[in-house]
Amino acid sequence: MDWKAEIDSAAERIGPHIMQTPVMGTGGFGLPFEVALKLEQLQHTGTFKARGAFNTLLKNPVPEAGIVAASGGNHGAAVAYAATHLGHPAHIFVPEIAGPSKIGLIRSTGAELTVVAGEYANALEMAQAHEDRTGAMQIHAYDAVDTVTGQGTLMSEWEGQELEADTVVIAVGGGGLIAGALAWLQGARKVVAVEPDTSCALHAALAAGDPVDVDVSGVAANALGARRIGSICLDLSQQFLGEAVTVPDAAITAAQVALWRERRLLVEPAGATALAALMSGAYQPAPSERVAVLLCGGNIAPDPFAG
Amino acid sequence: MDWKAEIDSAAERIGPHIMQTPVMGTGGFGLPFEVALKLEQLQHTGTFKARGAFNTLLKNPVPEAGIVAASGGNHGAAVAYAATHLGHPAHIFVPEIAGPSKIGLIRSTGAELTVVAGEYANALEMAQAHEDRTGAMQIHAYDAVDTVTGQGTLMSEWEGQELEADTVVIAVGGGGLIAGALAWLQGARKVVAVEPDTSCALHAALAAGDPVDVDVSGVAANALGARRIGSICLDLSQQFLGEAVTVPDAAITAAQVALWRERRLLVEPAGATALAALMSGAYQPAPSERVAVLLCGGNIAPDPFAG
Repeated sequence: MDWKAEIDSAAERIGPHIMQTPVMGTGGFGLPFEVALKLEQLQHTGTFKARGAFNTLLKNPVPEAGIVAASGGNHGAAVAYAATHLGHPAHIFVPEIAGPSKIGLIRSTGAELTVVAGEYANALEMAQAHEDRTGAMQIHAYDAVDTVTGQGTLMSEWEGQELEADTVVIAVGGGGLIAGALAWLQGARKVVAVEPDTSCALHAALAAGDPVDVDVSGVAANALGARRIGSICLDLSQQFLGEAVTVPDAAITAAQVALWRERRLLVEPAGATALAALMSGAYQPAPSERVAVLLCGGNIAPDPFAG
Repeated sequence: MDWKAEIDSAAERIGPHIMQTPVMGTGGFGLPFEVALKLEQLQHTGTFKARGAFNTLLKNPVPEAGIVAASGGNHGAAVAYAATHLGHPAHIFVPEIAGPSKIGLIRSTGAELTVVAGEYANALEMAQAHEDRTGAMQIHAYDAVDTVTGQGTLMSEWEGQELEADTVVIAVGGGGLIAGALAWLQGARKVVAVEPDTSCALHAALAAGDPVDVDVSGVAANALGARRIGSICLDLSQQFLGEAVTVPDAAITAAQVALWRERRLLVEPAGATALAALMSGAYQPAPSERVAVLLCGGNIAPDPFAG
């Protein structure tokens, strides 16, 4: 598969519908080097996931029953936004772990919403049943080619913004985002995968040589808590991943607070997970290594204006 | 005075110490047109005021007693940060109206801090007494040439970031920021001044033909609540200002919530005041007019991580 050509096509397809998110260089965070940040939390619905959602909906015929998705919140919000924006019905199954902020975000798009007791896997089951029953089109949150190529546009866009980094540090949940980056870069820059200690499906899969189920918990679980890594992500990781590290929840929270206190960037725990790898020393760049950090999500809970 | 040359010099002087803040274009906010945003709330200490503070400290000899400032919070934080960063002692007098978030921000720089009962003018009185007693250098929050030229670097930087706007919309408190923009642009683009209904020292001064005292209150008072506009600002406004409008507090809050909900930009009320002029219709651009909006401050209270 010609990933780069697919990602170029995806970028053209979704260009009119998504934000080109800004980049900035900054010191701080207790680090002895500058980092290049990509502010993808400013994307529609607060995460990169709008990219994959628009790509899937624009590339494929959408049935009359519309679309269905299972999501820990961010994918559901993105799919709901993209479907509504393009005039399709949408039904989103959200695990209750998502929390009121993300559930409210999905509801605000006008999509139909079902909150499911339990974890992501439970929501996925119900979404599959809905698909079987209605013929609605399911959009997988991370393990589908059109989702991965959509997310890959983030990395191609970033390279078009004069990215100078040797190394790009990216948080991993189900692996759609990092798969897109690996598919685009194919080793041209080092990619570092960062997972929370408390939900590390990629680590488990790399160790086992196959996707395996893991337990998920912790501060970033409602975004990164995929029980099983995507097979596309695992395949691309086995070919192109530079390094995989994990970080404790406390490091994620510390990075989240530092991003706000030092730089007025308010992100959710998943959005701070990549920076946490640098601040905690889980990933230590070489002295001259230029490092870029992807801020991938801003759907913090509780909403600052909830009270 | 050759403002453009002074601002160019200021930009060179402060370049190594300040952030080049990102820009982005975006739709939304219920507006039928796109706006170009400058994310100056990502500047050091959360506002543009670091620019004027660094310019003043780098251009002038600093006495052994260091510096002193009176500030509703943001200027104090910027001066404290710049002084500490450059190795000078700093004593900041803050009116209690500033609130715990901004007071905490100043304290975090390591500067000495005195919280003063009452408004900005009361803090200014105490700062002047401190200056007389110690020989410390006072940095005025907005009505000094080096402050204005420092703030002017924001506009020159923005023009260097491919700004295409016909019109730039800017919030006004004491007027240092808009004075810098007017000094740089000198009519090359239309500048719209936005003040809260509840503290509009520029409006009062434009009507009177001279700076006059006004009452200040409202949601943005701790940043925009200057009782008297700077004379430099009034002079430049009389020459170059395109239009001056005011907005009610409710419009400011609505813009603040929209910036978060729609774009994940968390700003303080003052930071949302320029956008409020568009959202409320206080300023209505012509059909083909390209509009840019300056987000000038992000020091929201309470701090999202205070709880």
